[in-house]
Amino acid sequence: MSSESPQFGGKFRAGVLCATGIVGQRLVQRLAGHPRFQLTEVAASERSSGKRYAEAVKWHLNEPIPAAAGELSVKGLEPSLDCDFVFSALDSSVAGPAEEDFARAGYPVVSNCKNHRMDPDVPLLIPEVNASHLEAISLQQKNRGYGTGFIVTNPNCSTAGLVLVLKPLADAFGLEKLFVVTMQATSGAGYPGVPSLDILGNVVPFIDGEEEKMETEPQKLLGKWDGGRFVEAGLGISAHCNRVPVENGHLESVSMSLKKVATLAEVREVLRDFTVSDELAALPTAVKNPVLVMDEENRPQPRRDVDAGHGMAAAVGRIRECPLLDVKLTLLSHNLLRGAAGAALLNAELLAARGLIARSRVSAGEAAQPQTVTP
Amino acid sequence: MSSESPQFGGKFRAGVLCATGIVGQRLVQRLAGHPRFQLTEVAASERSSGKRYAEAVKWHLNEPIPAAAGELSVKGLEPSLDCDFVFSALDSSVAGPAEEDFARAGYPVVSNCKNHRMDPDVPLLIPEVNASHLEAISLQQKNRGYGTGFIVTNPNCSTAGLVLVLKPLADAFGLEKLFVVTMQATSGAGYPGVPSLDILGNVVPFIDGEEEKMETEPQKLLGKWDGGRFVEAGLGISAHCNRVPVENGHLESVSMSLKKVATLAEVREVLRDFTVSDELAALPTAVKNPVLVMDEENRPQPRRDVDAGHGMAAAVGRIRECPLLDVKLTLLSHNLLRGAAGAALLNAELLAARGLIARSRVSAGEAAQPQTVTP
Amino acid sequence: MSSESPQFGGKFRAGVLCATGIVGQRLVQRLAGHPRFQLTEVAASERSSGKRYAEAVKWHLNEPIPAAAGELSVKGLEPSLDCDFVFSALDSSVAGPAEEDFARAGYPVVSNCKNHRMDPDVPLLIPEVNASHLEAISLQQKNRGYGTGFIVTNPNCSTAGLVLVLKPLADAFGLEKLFVVTMQATSGAGYPGVPSLDILGNVVPFIDGEEEKMETEPQKLLGKWDGGRFVEAGLGISAHCNRVPVENGHLESVSMSLKKVATLAEVREVLRDFTVSDELAALPTAVKNPVLVMDEENRPQPRRDVDAGHGMAAAVGRIRECPLLDVKLTLLSHNLLRGAAGAALLNAELLAARGLIARSRVSAGEAAQPQTVTP
Amino acid sequence: MSSESPQFGGKFRAGVLCATGIVGQRLVQRLAGHPRFQLTEVAASERSSGKRYAEAVKWHLNEPIPAAAGELSVKGLEPSLDCDFVFSALDSSVAGPAEEDFARAGYPVVSNCKNHRMDPDVPLLIPEVNASHLEAISLQQKNRGYGTGFIVTNPNCSTAGLVLVLKPLADAFGLEKLFVVTMQATSGAGYPGVPSLDILGNVVPFIDGEEEKMETEPQKLLGKWDGGRFVEAGLGISAHCNRVPVENGHLESVSMSLKKVATLAEVREVLRDFTVSDELAALPTAVKNPVLVMDEENRPQPRRDVDAGHGMAAAVGRIRECPLLDVKLTLLSHNLLRGAAGAALLNAELLAARGLIARSRVSAGEAAQPQTVTP
Repeated sequence: MSSESPQFGGKFRAGVLCATGIVGQRLVQRLAGHPRFQLTEVAASERSSGKRYAEAVKWHLNEPIPAAAGELSVKGLEPSLDCDFVFSALDSSVAGPAEEDFARAGYPVVSNCKNHRMDPDVPLLIPEVNASHLEAISLQQKNRGYGTGFIVTNPNCSTAGLVLVLKPLADAFGLEKLFVVTMQATSGAGYPGVPSLDILGNVVPFIDGEEEKMETEPQKLLGKWDGGRFVEAGLGISAHCNRVPVENGHLESVSMSLKKVATLAEVREVLRDFTVSDELAALPTAVKNPVLVMDEENRPQPRRDVDAGHGMAAAVGRIRECPLLDVKLTLLSHNLLRGAAGAALLNAELLAARGLIARSRVSAGEAAQPQTVTP
Repeated sequence: MSSESPQFGGKFRAGVLCATGIVGQRLVQRLAGHPRFQLTEVAASERSSGKRYAEAVKWHLNEPIPAAAGELSVKGLEPSLDCDFVFSALDSSVAGPAEEDFARAGYPVVSNCKNHRMDPDVPLLIPEVNASHLEAISLQQKNRGYGTGFIVTNPNCSTAGLVLVLKPLADAFGLEKLFVVTMQATSGAGYPGVPSLDILGNVVPFIDGEEEKMETEPQKLLGKWDGGRFVEAGLGISAHCNRVPVENGHLESVSMSLKKVATLAEVREVLRDFTVSDELAALPTAVKNPVLVMDEENRPQPRRDVDAGHGMAAAVGRIRECPLLDVKLTLLSHNLLRGAAGAALLNAELLAARGLIARSRVSAGEAAQPQTVTP
Repeated sequence: MSSESPQFGGKFRAGVLCATGIVGQRLVQRLAGHPRFQLTEVAASERSSGKRYAEAVKWHLNEPIPAAAGELSVKGLEPSLDCDFVFSALDSSVAGPAEEDFARAGYPVVSNCKNHRMDPDVPLLIPEVNASHLEAISLQQKNRGYGTGFIVTNPNCSTAGLVLVLKPLADAFGLEKLFVVTMQATSGAGYPGVPSLDILGNVVPFIDGEEEKMETEPQKLLGKWDGGRFVEAGLGISAHCNRVPVENGHLESVSMSLKKVATLAEVREVLRDFTVSDELAALPTAVKNPVLVMDEENRPQPRRDVDAGHGMAAAVGRIRECPLLDVKLTLLSHNLLRGAAGAALLNAELLAARGLIARSRVSAGEAAQPQTVTP
Repeated sequence: MSSESPQFGGKFRAGVLCATGIVGQRLVQRLAGHPRFQLTEVAASERSSGKRYAEAVKWHLNEPIPAAAGELSVKGLEPSLDCDFVFSALDSSVAGPAEEDFARAGYPVVSNCKNHRMDPDVPLLIPEVNASHLEAISLQQKNRGYGTGFIVTNPNCSTAGLVLVLKPLADAFGLEKLFVVTMQATSGAGYPGVPSLDILGNVVPFIDGEEEKMETEPQKLLGKWDGGRFVEAGLGISAHCNRVPVENGHLESVSMSLKKVATLAEVREVLRDFTVSDELAALPTAVKNPVLVMDEENRPQPRRDVDAGHGMAAAVGRIRECPLLDVKLTLLSHNLLRGAAGAALLNAELLAARGLIARSRVSAGEAAQPQTVTP
């Protein structure tokens, strides 16, 4: 089957690992009607394997299950899926070796999981921020003997929006220190996730492992690939993470110090002017201006602004002076889109555009059409 | 009437200005059965004046209106109330001149309002923190020609819990810099206050004037009275204030740097060992240990811990290292008790204990009993 | 200006009374890009009059204010607006005489207010239910000496969804008795509306006047116009109304008895098969199937299903036997769309389609274009 | 060991099955300092067995774990506990046979579980309503060969408050038909129970098995024991059950028809005058007036009124005419106290007062003191 294969209109065939989870569902939804990808496989734990996807999933989205996806037969997590690459939305308890198995078997793995994010040869990727880190893939393949497969990851949901806002400021002024306090939506914990008795009318000032991720991942994302290793950005970062009774959208109170003196007007201007390259702007999931600057004194707010840029932008407001560092601001991003499913999708789109996803794995016969369960 | 007057069992007679508001109601409630104060007057705006208190108030507390208070006739805001001192829970739009009028007329004014907090001759008081600031009263009386009256204030609701926790650390190690992000309950905005459409499933990253108060008031509270003026503490403070869908209890994520090196164990120990003087411990509203240190990794939480120390303690948890400053922690205090009504009550108790509230204003006849509305 | 006027592409020019309120905002939003109506006037109380709409309104919708609407100058409530008809989203304290003034001045008034709903010569209209009631307009005009003006109303937000579901059942089986308990969203009370302290983690079992409306309005809606008066449907109705901490969407638990014996399968089928006439289906705001039957055992749910049929359908689920009457079910409809702004818009579309809205009021000169505020 | 045994001050020794659950925790809390019972055993599933209770439990109550209870060693569910009787707060998946095992082994079982509630020889007991049903115990013992053991149950949490309100009305006027719609708190589903993503800003119109319980249990509770079997009350009952985002307290909208004509004033009076017998009034958990009639038009409300009568009263408000049946009202009761832990405790207190709990099972030596885990 060539790339002009009429079966899929020239689209790459995608599988989703843990397609029944809350992030997996968003991927399944966003893949319906995707111009470059065709969902051909959904995989999950043993318990769901063999069922129709529509039967296996407890669907959380307001829009119905895409009809074609609902008919797919749920597969197990063995690396023998009929697709050109896989998204991994696996639980971290199983993602580590499972993603390696798929990469070893030749699949590009576009992962939302934390397990390999900080590996020294795995790109932790936000296309608008550090697309050049994809250069690490060839070393990863060589190091690990992977052949055509590899692993690329996207950051933690609370890191994603933060770094998107930091990037243009780092480029324009240089960053030194960063305080960030998050107020995170319950959907960030998956489903069933946070029990209602823990969060109704309450705030929980602890999310396991979250502060560590926020203090670590930006160093890699804003750092450089020097040809052989990732060089950290060397920021001072302090993070406090809280869970609040909000459905979607992580809100963050941020203070930062800059290396160069900048006025608030210049900070606002740099954020407003942040536009992506033509290569990125051409990707279906990308937005031209991934940072939305709001002027109202009481925005952004999760319930009102979470869908900025179709959920792929970070909304920023309350840019003001910080008595301790230089600048204070408040930012918001959609934890399931910009912070998970949309992030992975955008990563895959960039990989495909750069020729890092191929159709070579397919034998014409078996891949002619998605397998559905016979009633 | 002497201090042994049998009418009130030797209690001082208290009035409450804006007794119908959310803070005034808490004062009315806490004054019922108070061992040293007797509520004899409730005052409010023109609209309520003349009604029985039970008719004038939209009562918000779960416990019923104290019977005797319910029968009081609501007075206007003229300084001719039959009481030895007044609590002021007035709106800031009227509190400025109204409190001065009462002080000029000879009433000690124990105020929860922001208007006079930063006046150079008005104590901003937390008894456990800066009782020595009461020395400013005599200068205030002299400056303003007040006679027996004066104004004493308590801090903003989000400042109160914060400074209570900072005080023992400042004494033991010295404080340099402070980063604080609040997640504040809706009751902090009074009633009707925050519309439900603004806060259900949402966070609002703005509270008018709140960050300014938090960056200013601790300087005075942790500073010194040098005999003629208040000397600020000289801290570097950066505050971000957010409103969350919580009924009561302001939660705060705090990072701070200390002047002396301290281990986390030493920080915990200093907080745990913070006990008040015998003078304070004898006050009815005081708690012996005003800081409660919690060891659970996900505490304090507003809904679960807001009533620590009968609402007069600050609960502290998650004491850990800060990668940027020295110590991170999370603290919680009850915004209506520690942060408002309880704070004012404790201030009044200290004033009474130190002889700063007197019974001299009363003519035996007119003050024989509280005035009730004739049915 | 003829109906072929190029200025407005042949559209009717609409005004919105109380355009700054929560229902008025929805109307303003839905009128942007409307194929048959052009918003040319926004009116509100004295306080807003003279300002640009964008300045006068506290906008509540996630989508931005339509640009053209934002530039309109807010007018007062005098019946001298430059438009062919008006929507009234006025507060009931002023709607009564104000709507009469507009009707008397020749404007068709499409009202969301309660004041004239039960008038004996005013149609209370749901196009899918009782379009024939429009025949009452000519009598209304004659009775009141209105000329070209008249008043048409839509029902209360909790009645709208209910009657939409009852209509096909009444037609197929006849209705006798009806129990309904509502769980209503806070947006039904407007803005600022319900204080958060009243509804966070709470239910309020009372909404002023709501039960009376629900027990009265369906009688008229499901009744008949006999040429000279409205004949009530003669149902037995008992309503209990509750407010719940939900943003949008009124949920209702309903039991009913039918005149003819029907199986649950027949009830489901009748509801599923409920389709509107071709005349209605051609209206921009109409949906072909205004009742959505859901099969999941725990649906409909406000947060998940409120947007069924773009907010214009009623979602119905849990159709099951009632031990006391015949059928139990749960229904949901969008209180601001199906129950207010969408209802009024659909009414106006039907009026326009039937030739009841005309362009005769306009002098060519003054109505050439919407008036904007000169900066 | 005699009833004057100094070890337990003459108290009966109680065990709690599933002491780690949300109802079990309430029992453990309420047994601390109980004047007639001493908690000597906590039992739970295999997973917790052997641990100290304080280690095994995820404690949900704001007050700390009672110190003595925290030190108890968690036992398994074998009927060899060192206590005079057991409370069962087991999950319904295991309660059926487990409770029978304990009864067979001689333990009085005071159960909160649904499994045996409708058994023809098991009392479903609300002491204020049907204490005479305890006569069935002797037949139960005979039928099942139980010796000193037996099973007594309390009703479902949403039934408990309802029947408490119905009882005086049934006695005074007779009841015919009943329509009830519940709005139930999430704590009714235990912990972790309802996921926050299902209920934040939402209502779920389905609770598995709840409507069936509400339509069945009142028939037995309000019926009679005729010496050989329970005779049902013969009410017509229709129930709709909904879950709302409230922590504690089930609110119910009720309409009912009475056999005798009664004015609303008479209905209110009968409810207000409902007082318990001297026998019941002497029980530690009983309240003299188990129905609290509220006059405010918008009460009862869960967050404000759930603790009426220390959580053991049902609060009733909005008593008004029903256009379809006779009377409408709204009622509220605490689902974890009146509806579960408090209900079981009150049942046990009545059993003890009537001599149905004995101390015969104990050998002096082994039961000398509660077993604690050796550190």
